[in-house]
Amino acid sequence: MLDRVRVVLVGTSHAGNIGGAARAMKNMGLSRLVLAGPEVVFPHPEATWRAVQAADLLDTAVVTRDLAEAVADCTLVIGTSARERRIQLPQVSPRGLGGLLARSRPDEQIALVFGREDSGLSNEELRMCHWHVHIPTSSSYSSLNLAAAVQILCYELRLACLAPDPAPAAESDWDEPFATVEGVERFYEHLEQALTEIGFLKPSAPRQLMTRLRRLFNRVRLDQMELNILRGMLTEIQKAARGGGPRT
Amino acid sequence: MLDRVRVVLVGTSHAGNIGGAARAMKNMGLSRLVLAGPEVVFPHPEATWRAVQAADLLDTAVVTRDLAEAVADCTLVIGTSARERRIQLPQVSPRGLGGLLARSRPDEQIALVFGREDSGLSNEELRMCHWHVHIPTSSSYSSLNLAAAVQILCYELRLACLAPDPAPAAESDWDEPFATVEGVERFYEHLEQALTEIGFLKPSAPRQLMTRLRRLFNRVRLDQMELNILRGMLTEIQKAARGGGPRT
Repeated sequence: MLDRVRVVLVGTSHAGNIGGAARAMKNMGLSRLVLAGPEVVFPHPEATWRAVQAADLLDTAVVTRDLAEAVADCTLVIGTSARERRIQLPQVSPRGLGGLLARSRPDEQIALVFGREDSGLSNEELRMCHWHVHIPTSSSYSSLNLAAAVQILCYELRLACLAPDPAPAAESDWDEPFATVEGVERFYEHLEQALTEIGFLKPSAPRQLMTRLRRLFNRVRLDQMELNILRGMLTEIQKAARGGGPRT
Repeated sequence: MLDRVRVVLVGTSHAGNIGGAARAMKNMGLSRLVLAGPEVVFPHPEATWRAVQAADLLDTAVVTRDLAEAVADCTLVIGTSARERRIQLPQVSPRGLGGLLARSRPDEQIALVFGREDSGLSNEELRMCHWHVHIPTSSSYSSLNLAAAVQILCYELRLACLAPDPAPAAESDWDEPFATVEGVERFYEHLEQALTEIGFLKPSAPRQLMTRLRRLFNRVRLDQMELNILRGMLTEIQKAARGGGPRT
C-alpha cells in the first residue's frame, strides 16, 4: 500500500527539511518523494546531510513545476493544513488516514501534500485536495517543523499497514516460561518459613506481611528462572540463620 | 497530565537534536526537558536555532550528570529502545503509552527516556526503566532521528490527552504511593550487599543475578510500603548472616 503513496512537498525553502522528510519517509517504509516548485536549489548538500541513509530517496525524487503537475495522475490527494481555512474541505484525522488508504482501490495513486514552511498551502492548492488532514498541536506553539509533520503522518500510515496494535504488555514472547501457580505457592511457603527463621515474621503477630508479599509477587508474574533464583536465595538465608556467619 | 512527564535525552551529541526535540515537545504541549550527561556544550546556538519558538524549553532545561540523577524522583520510567535486547523488559507500543499514563496516579512523576544518537541507551540505563517503548520502523532504515522519535512519542501522548483511554484504571487507585527510582536503587544496593553476605552472590562470578532481580522488581513497580518491608527483610538477613542463629 505504501508504494502507492507519494509525499509531495510544495514550495519548500529549507533544504534540510527535504532531507529530514526523506529520512522520515524511509524510516516508515515510504519511498516516493516529489518536490513541487521547491524554493531552494536541489540537489543540495544540506538535504543530503539530513537524509543520512535516505539519500537514495533524494536521488529518485521527482521535481515538478507545481502541485498540479505533482498530483496529475492521482485519484486521492490529502493536504495537510492548519485548522482554520476559509474554504472547508472534508477533514480526516491523522489516525483516520490509515482507514482512508485501506479503503482505496489497489490501483489508486495517492498523494500526501505538505505546504511551505512559513505559509502552508494556498487556497488554490487546497482546492486540489480531496481531504484535509490536521495534526493536533498545542495552542502555545502550533507550527510543526515540516520534517516533523511528514514523520507523524508517515508513522500513522505505517501503523495502518502493520498488524493490529498488540496489547500494551507484550508478554507472549517473554524469554522464559512463566512459573506455575503451584510453583509460586511453594515459594510462598518457603518464604514464610525463611522469614520466620530470621525473626522477621513473628507467627504470633504476622500482621499483613505475607498478604503484602503475595500481592507484590503476584503482580509481577514470576518466570521459572526468577522462581529458581528466589528459592535458591531463601535456602542461603536459611543456612545463614541456622549456621550463622557468612559463607565464602 | 503532560506536566508530569519529563523528556530525558541521554548523552546527546548533536546540539541541533536538542533544539528539534524541544520544538517537538512544545508543539505537542510538553515542557519539561532534561539533558542527562549531554555530549555537547549546552546551551548551544544550533540548539536555539532548531528550537525556533521553543527556546523557552531550552532555558528551563535541567542538565544532570546521568540518567539516575535525571529520574531519581520518578515512579514510572519508560525507555525507548531498538527491539533486540538480551534481557527483555515489558514492552509497550507507542500507542499504548497513553493508556499507561492515563492509569498513572495523579502525583506520579513520569520520564520518557531517549538514548544516544549512535548507540541508544546502555543495558544499565535500560534496567532503570519500567517499560520499553519501540517505534516500529522499516527494516530498510530503522534508525530514527532523535528529534523525530521525540516527535512521534509526544504526539501519541498528546492524542492520549485529547481522547483519554477508556481502559479501566488499574493502577491509578493503588492504595500506596509508588516507590521512587532513588528509593528502589538504594534497595538494589542493599540487596546486592545482603546477597553477598549470605554467599548467594559471588562478586567474582556475579553472572546475571542482579540483572535478573532488577528486571523482576522493576516489573512490579514497588510501592513505598513494599519497599519498607523488603528493606526490613534485608536488614534481618544481614543480622542472621553476621550474628548467626534465629531471633526469638
